[in-house]
Amino acid sequence: MTLHAAATHPDLVTVEVPTHWYNLPAELDEPIPPHLHPGTKEPVTADDLAALFPSGLIAQEVSTDPYIAIPEAVREIYSMWRPSPLIRARRFEQALNTGAHIYVKYEGVSPVGSHKTNSAVAQAYYNSIDGVRKLTTETGAGQWGSALAFAGAQFGLEIEVWQVRASYESKPYRGHLIRTYGGTVHSSPSNLTESGRAILASSPDTTGSLGMAVSEAVEVAAADPDTRYALGSVLNHVVLHQSVIGLEAVAQLAAVEPNGADVVFGCAGGGSNLAGLAFPFLREKIHGRSNPRVVAAEPAACPSITQGEYRYDHGDVAGLTPLLKMHTLGMDFVPDPIHAGGLRYHGMAPALSHTVALGLVEGIAIEQHDAFAAGVQFARSQGIVPAPESTHAIAAAARHVADDPAEQVVVIGLSGHGQLDLPAYAEFLDGNF
Amino acid sequence: MTLHAAATHPDLVTVEVPTHWYNLPAELDEPIPPHLHPGTKEPVTADDLAALFPSGLIAQEVSTDPYIAIPEAVREIYSMWRPSPLIRARRFEQALNTGAHIYVKYEGVSPVGSHKTNSAVAQAYYNSIDGVRKLTTETGAGQWGSALAFAGAQFGLEIEVWQVRASYESKPYRGHLIRTYGGTVHSSPSNLTESGRAILASSPDTTGSLGMAVSEAVEVAAADPDTRYALGSVLNHVVLHQSVIGLEAVAQLAAVEPNGADVVFGCAGGGSNLAGLAFPFLREKIHGRSNPRVVAAEPAACPSITQGEYRYDHGDVAGLTPLLKMHTLGMDFVPDPIHAGGLRYHGMAPALSHTVALGLVEGIAIEQHDAFAAGVQFARSQGIVPAPESTHAIAAAARHVADDPAEQVVVIGLSGHGQLDLPAYAEFLDGNF
Repeated sequence: MTLHAAATHPDLVTVEVPTHWYNLPAELDEPIPPHLHPGTKEPVTADDLAALFPSGLIAQEVSTDPYIAIPEAVREIYSMWRPSPLIRARRFEQALNTGAHIYVKYEGVSPVGSHKTNSAVAQAYYNSIDGVRKLTTETGAGQWGSALAFAGAQFGLEIEVWQVRASYESKPYRGHLIRTYGGTVHSSPSNLTESGRAILASSPDTTGSLGMAVSEAVEVAAADPDTRYALGSVLNHVVLHQSVIGLEAVAQLAAVEPNGADVVFGCAGGGSNLAGLAFPFLREKIHGRSNPRVVAAEPAACPSITQGEYRYDHGDVAGLTPLLKMHTLGMDFVPDPIHAGGLRYHGMAPALSHTVALGLVEGIAIEQHDAFAAGVQFARSQGIVPAPESTHAIAAAARHVADDPAEQVVVIGLSGHGQLDLPAYAEFLDGNF
Repeated sequence: MTLHAAATHPDLVTVEVPTHWYNLPAELDEPIPPHLHPGTKEPVTADDLAALFPSGLIAQEVSTDPYIAIPEAVREIYSMWRPSPLIRARRFEQALNTGAHIYVKYEGVSPVGSHKTNSAVAQAYYNSIDGVRKLTTETGAGQWGSALAFAGAQFGLEIEVWQVRASYESKPYRGHLIRTYGGTVHSSPSNLTESGRAILASSPDTTGSLGMAVSEAVEVAAADPDTRYALGSVLNHVVLHQSVIGLEAVAQLAAVEPNGADVVFGCAGGGSNLAGLAFPFLREKIHGRSNPRVVAAEPAACPSITQGEYRYDHGDVAGLTPLLKMHTLGMDFVPDPIHAGGLRYHGMAPALSHTVALGLVEGIAIEQHDAFAAGVQFARSQGIVPAPESTHAIAAAARHVADDPAEQVVVIGLSGHGQLDLPAYAEFLDGNF
């Protein structure tokens, strides 16, 4: 059932689908600061989370085990497209005129075209074995919502998605994709929830935000005992699921670059993509096997790492979620409606924020124009049109190799393809930004 | 530079990127009836074709060699995504409740998401070594136009595309994709050509057709000595290039099904996808190694095999192309603007029509509603949203296994993904057809 037969190309690198997820924070001397109950301000307990999440995910949220077994039902679905390819981007290297070896870890081969399926499948599985009937969630560009709709179809779960209005209106295709998989999608803020109605009353023309959409999905899940909420990024268990990206990439790279990576770039919105790619590379660093720099590329319009504060804040705009210790621009921050809808989030995963605070990860803010220019250059050389989110990582890497001409090994996380974001490319080509 | 690392999944099948294309007609007792000059009605000569095509492709158009070496520059680009996967569609089998073993050969992993790149790369290569500066072409849904734009970017060729108006207006994303790769795209009929202006004068509200778009692209190419025309289907050299699909599939299937295929289904518009998949399976048949049925699934709205006549006809609506012996609905036939834009062609590849006439290939006409119903069922079970064109093959295969419950090996050609055709899925889900 794999999507990928093996090529016998000199750049081919083979690796197995991982059997375990990797939990980097369990190997760090300092633990991640705990999430706090929004009312009591005390560390949240498993009971506090039980209204929102199934038991398997709650256990992962607070786990101190460095490795957690991937259930066979999840791994079987992963193997429909995993391991995802690690591609030596030789034509992009030529376009940049660099001596660097540039590798891209490409998550666009998943059924919905992004890394989001890695957590969606796991979350749908753990909810299904707890007898949950329905999941609610938020989505920005629609990558997460469509991933959860796909996963719901695999496990027989009903899926209801609130999509940020700016993306819902400008990028209808992923909403169609959600429906094709059997899910339901609403524009957020909506009239279907109290939090949505309150926002519409005060800001009828809002472009929406991930924080608002989270509030709506959480509200609906909390009101029905058979419904749970699924978050596509930020939380520890989501970061954990995404570790399959980096586990594969480290193994794939080892077969062709014995000294491992010198620099790893990934885009960071809520943080799970970057952390999923980077944490296994940081495992290599803390165990002394290599010494990679890790760079989180975030949009200049939503620079939570480079401009935000590291403090406790809510994950949503209505204050329904636990308080999370993270780099944040403030729960009320509404970023401009940039095309990288998946990066329009005010905060950053606590697990990733923790590694930033420990000096293991750096941030860089990329302007939208520069991101798309790099995306077009990549498309014309390698053929793959990157997701707007991913173009931030490509632009950061291109800038790095231009500034530092040393022969070096660069890994770029290509979180997804941009075939459903082509209107944004057209606007860029028209000179609109 | 491969897009696909190997999975160690039990269903994994490995195979090399083919070193040669396969030319089935060279192995048949009866040759394909020659193309005729539109003026003299005599068989066309290489000189006749030199105004439109480069020498390498003209040689292939009339070749009697069963195997033709793939140039290394082409094979290197193929290996960015080839071999494409052969997937055992176990979840789709479960959805159909069938004992058949269903395999899909999936061309959606190419940079533009369809099989069209297989010929686009080859055509761009042969034009570039002849010193051609620019290529013109037509496109329906945009699969071929975007494939040629990708290929042009690899070989430094300017690409100008006329896209059938119905698709240009309803599916703008592939036009954006053409531009992202650096190409130019126009709605057809356009005011840029004599043939376009003539059609607009008599039928200003036409939805366009592939035949009209061919006329425009041929007219522009014929007027400039540095420009050549590239056709995405129908001609013998295009069918030849697509044989990599079937060559891989036969080898991949042999590793898991020692008796080979019992039935092969592919969608047929111009015919190159079906012929590319099926001709290597027919090689197995004529050499007595297996005995597969081959079924061409065509849209009920454009049923050239099942309803057309087998006779000489023009490939375009203006009568500029050679006369081709093929199954045709007539050069003036304008099919309804169905969503499978790539299947809206009045004729059928002479090479494929020849095998139909010899009894090696059968046709079946599929209604659009049935095609999309099968596409949704496939998406919900296997995750991949098929191109509307490909859903015809899926529907035909699903009907076959429902009618014939025998344990059997079924191969379906999945010519591309449908991520850029999601509005059509939304219309289907809305009950509009």
